[in-house]
Amino acid sequence: MGEGEEEVKVLSVWSSPFGIRVLIGLEEKGVRYEYQEESLASKTQLLLQMNPVHKKIPVLIHNGKPICESLIILQYMDEVWPGSNSLLPSNPYDRALARFWADFLDTKFLVNVVDKIFKCTGEGQEEGTRYMLEYLGLLERELSAGEGKPYFGGEQFGFLDIAIIPYACWFHTLETFRKWKIPWETEFPRLQEWVKKSMERESVKKILPDAQKVLQYAIPVRKRFVSSD
Amino acid sequence: MGEGEEEVKVLSVWSSPFGIRVLIGLEEKGVRYEYQEESLASKTQLLLQMNPVHKKIPVLIHNGKPICESLIILQYMDEVWPGSNSLLPSNPYDRALARFWADFLDTKFLVNVVDKIFKCTGEGQEEGTRYMLEYLGLLERELSAGEGKPYFGGEQFGFLDIAIIPYACWFHTLETFRKWKIPWETEFPRLQEWVKKSMERESVKKILPDAQKVLQYAIPVRKRFVSSD
Repeated sequence: MGEGEEEVKVLSVWSSPFGIRVLIGLEEKGVRYEYQEESLASKTQLLLQMNPVHKKIPVLIHNGKPICESLIILQYMDEVWPGSNSLLPSNPYDRALARFWADFLDTKFLVNVVDKIFKCTGEGQEEGTRYMLEYLGLLERELSAGEGKPYFGGEQFGFLDIAIIPYACWFHTLETFRKWKIPWETEFPRLQEWVKKSMERESVKKILPDAQKVLQYAIPVRKRFVSSD
Repeated sequence: MGEGEEEVKVLSVWSSPFGIRVLIGLEEKGVRYEYQEESLASKTQLLLQMNPVHKKIPVLIHNGKPICESLIILQYMDEVWPGSNSLLPSNPYDRALARFWADFLDTKFLVNVVDKIFKCTGEGQEEGTRYMLEYLGLLERELSAGEGKPYFGGEQFGFLDIAIIPYACWFHTLETFRKWKIPWETEFPRLQEWVKKSMERESVKKILPDAQKVLQYAIPVRKRFVSSD
């Protein structure tokens, strides 16, 4: 795994949920990698060269070849390093479901929840909160459908778990900006249990940034969108 | 394939590029299916029940279980009916590239090109046209990278070919609304060759709607967005 002549490098930004996915995936796979922190304000030549279409992080560079988009990178990892911890379930229907929910998260959660709570006040934030409660409810039901299995991936912490867990370090920031608390115990007890259990994994403990550090990073960013709070 | 006790049903709308992907995929796989035409104005109970999250077509219902999102459905097909025509390439890096370009199409092409040319006039349409030329240029380069191979999937008409070809029946509509012609010969000769060759496939011939029929369908839809043309 990641030994011999393999060269694995990640271009990312420490606070990015998408970048965090890639790093947790590599840790789960036991692949050694080099990490290069990028700055969105001043992108490196390497990033522009490796992802000329989107010019975005994260990028996984494997033996000189770039792979872009976090969910595509996770699937690539699973195909190129199949030996250890399988990320996607083996059953085609479960694989389709995992891909469906991960795609749902990427098309809906960021735009309707994170952006609205992060960059708005008043009605915008209210709307973001309503979406958040709705989406967390969907995930709670999805987790409950697993009949006592601890992870979205069943017994195994996998693709969908890795897709969702990076948001855990952002919840405190969203709660702070919204001056509100997510009702975990009453509304999302299974999800709360899942977050706790996922946070105990070595890969997540090593990679997931501290919630306070995320908040300190996020405060000046929010000020660019919201003048008074 | 698709025989014995398998039940395969597709909920779709004939003009949808996403729905067309699913039908071409099933034809390529040689799977027999039942087709149910949906109306976006009045969605059936079956659609709402099978895709309660997005309430969108296409949905593939396989032995009573729904699979949603066209690209996820194509990957599901490839995993559940692996025997005949493989849709995704076998090499992990090529698979990642195919997924990358299909995702690019879904996040960029519809929003920046189709929507703008379809629903705007003047500067909005100009912008859509600039994006279209840029994106077709990217696809032309990607196809040229295949070193003489006829398809995006190499020698085999596959996942990315199926993701892109449904737009072929929409080009005439976009050209008509834009009062302009895509410069295939001078700018995109490889793509033009690819469209021609793809159109000769049995699956595509059977499924792809006629460009004139798409235009007749699209004219009243455009009128809802643009009062004078």
